[in-house]
Amino acid sequence: MVYKQILKDIEEELLILEEDLLAWIDTDIDLIKQPLKDMIFSGGKRLRPAMVLAASRFGQYDFEKVRQLAVSVELIHTATLIHDDIIDDSPLRRGIPTIQSRLGKDVAVFAGDFVFSKVFELYAFSEHFELLRIVAKVLHKICEGELKQREDLFNTNLTFKDYIFRIRRKTAMLFALSAELGARASKAPEKTVKALYRYGMNIGIAFQIVDDLLDFTSNNTQLGKPVGADIREGVITLPTIYALRHSKQKEYLKDILLNKRTDEAEIENAIEIVKNSGGLNYARCIAEKYVEKAQKSIEQLPDIPIKKVLVNISTLVTNRTK
Amino acid sequence: MVYKQILKDIEEELLILEEDLLAWIDTDIDLIKQPLKDMIFSGGKRLRPAMVLAASRFGQYDFEKVRQLAVSVELIHTATLIHDDIIDDSPLRRGIPTIQSRLGKDVAVFAGDFVFSKVFELYAFSEHFELLRIVAKVLHKICEGELKQREDLFNTNLTFKDYIFRIRRKTAMLFALSAELGARASKAPEKTVKALYRYGMNIGIAFQIVDDLLDFTSNNTQLGKPVGADIREGVITLPTIYALRHSKQKEYLKDILLNKRTDEAEIENAIEIVKNSGGLNYARCIAEKYVEKAQKSIEQLPDIPIKKVLVNISTLVTNRTK
Repeated sequence: MVYKQILKDIEEELLILEEDLLAWIDTDIDLIKQPLKDMIFSGGKRLRPAMVLAASRFGQYDFEKVRQLAVSVELIHTATLIHDDIIDDSPLRRGIPTIQSRLGKDVAVFAGDFVFSKVFELYAFSEHFELLRIVAKVLHKICEGELKQREDLFNTNLTFKDYIFRIRRKTAMLFALSAELGARASKAPEKTVKALYRYGMNIGIAFQIVDDLLDFTSNNTQLGKPVGADIREGVITLPTIYALRHSKQKEYLKDILLNKRTDEAEIENAIEIVKNSGGLNYARCIAEKYVEKAQKSIEQLPDIPIKKVLVNISTLVTNRTK
Repeated sequence: MVYKQILKDIEEELLILEEDLLAWIDTDIDLIKQPLKDMIFSGGKRLRPAMVLAASRFGQYDFEKVRQLAVSVELIHTATLIHDDIIDDSPLRRGIPTIQSRLGKDVAVFAGDFVFSKVFELYAFSEHFELLRIVAKVLHKICEGELKQREDLFNTNLTFKDYIFRIRRKTAMLFALSAELGARASKAPEKTVKALYRYGMNIGIAFQIVDDLLDFTSNNTQLGKPVGADIREGVITLPTIYALRHSKQKEYLKDILLNKRTDEAEIENAIEIVKNSGGLNYARCIAEKYVEKAQKSIEQLPDIPIKKVLVNISTLVTNRTK
């Protein structure tokens, strides 16, 4: 697997983290014990912990100093996924049934809270009190991003800027946080911390743009949800923003969205309009621009082996589209 | 209002906390800005902050030292209420529409997370790092309590012990935490901290038993949800546990619950069976026992004026039934 090859520099550490993750989500409540385990081991790519580990190599690298931080970002990610799946009504995540589909939305609400509370506990019992401040701020921004997405549903006037505002919070800040945590914990110079933070943010933005693209181009099996789920739910993403400006059928597209039409034929028309508008290509170009920005962010950093890993990870993000 | 009279010793501090609460839940996201404000100001009794403030008087009282702690327990309470309302599908809370009924369950999930993340932030920027450990542990136990309630739905074999296990986590630990935080922050002697913790735990248990009683005895307007909501949802509480053992119609009651019957006539039968079983009286007696235990917990504490407030609060908890 390409991804594993890219990460072989930090492969061993990532394996140790699997055990840690398991320990942190363990509970005596049988109802969620196995479902949480299954979710953790359903093949997440651990991109965020990888970011922590990679960034920490630019300072005085000490795995024990960053180990818990790497776990924490994956736990935050897991908690938001559990709550996201409630909202999207997703039956599958990474090919396995979601907690909400296995146990109902009610259980999923508190299962997500449970994982969230574990993040709290992790920091409370760590030495990273200073870093907790950064984490806390990002956490509430992530929530704001998710709420912004609800606020912007079916908003056909959404701009590029609105979209970036939202995905920075919803997705990119956790990548940026991961890089920052790794760099700070290993006492990298402030300039390096900032560069890695920017790298994380740009990668995160590219990552989400690609995610939104895949919603149009993947098939149902790959996604675990119907193609065009975003259009169906009224989530306006970059390809749609483009189509709403540039498609010859933009008025029709606007009409479908504004009137929240649910007729399958109309939904499929909307998806086709976006696909034929050039919006996917546009979004892919923008994603690539952010990947370039990410790579540029770390240009000035010392040429240690892990730098190549970061460059490779960034390429991987856009390759997901193909 | 009786409650206000009882609390007049800490009335001024509680008023200051209202401002603090408002500041903490403020957000730029218009979607939830007003709904969160409305919820905060819908007439919550601030029992938990009152507990923090009262307990802190047994040490070197300094309002500024406990101010944020008092806010934090109300924020935790608010976050769990938002998520609870999703699960209960409640249209009203304290007489005003719930966030889930105003904005949908999706928004409520992240609105609750948002408030939860603010607790995180509050501690990150406070001086109470030591106390964060206690808070973190309680947070995950609260989630476990909520999950246990889901796990135990329609379980007609539920025992008194199971029930207490659940409500300790779901409700009582936050009361105990509140008392402990106040006492610890003001450096009360360890013996005093422990006594106040026990007081909080026992009051919390009594409080939840009474809440579960009210579900049978209040009317729809008072509750903001149909009478017998617990029976409808399959939540087995103390009166039902009693009825399942002692009612002459226990087999019929068991049948209704085990088969999750939703027919209105059958539900009403189940409610009547519980009411006629003596289960309400039993539960009221148990609640009173816990109030007595609470009062006994603080018997040895110095006779400062606030001690009377604690005794009065405890009486108030059971009086809610009448």
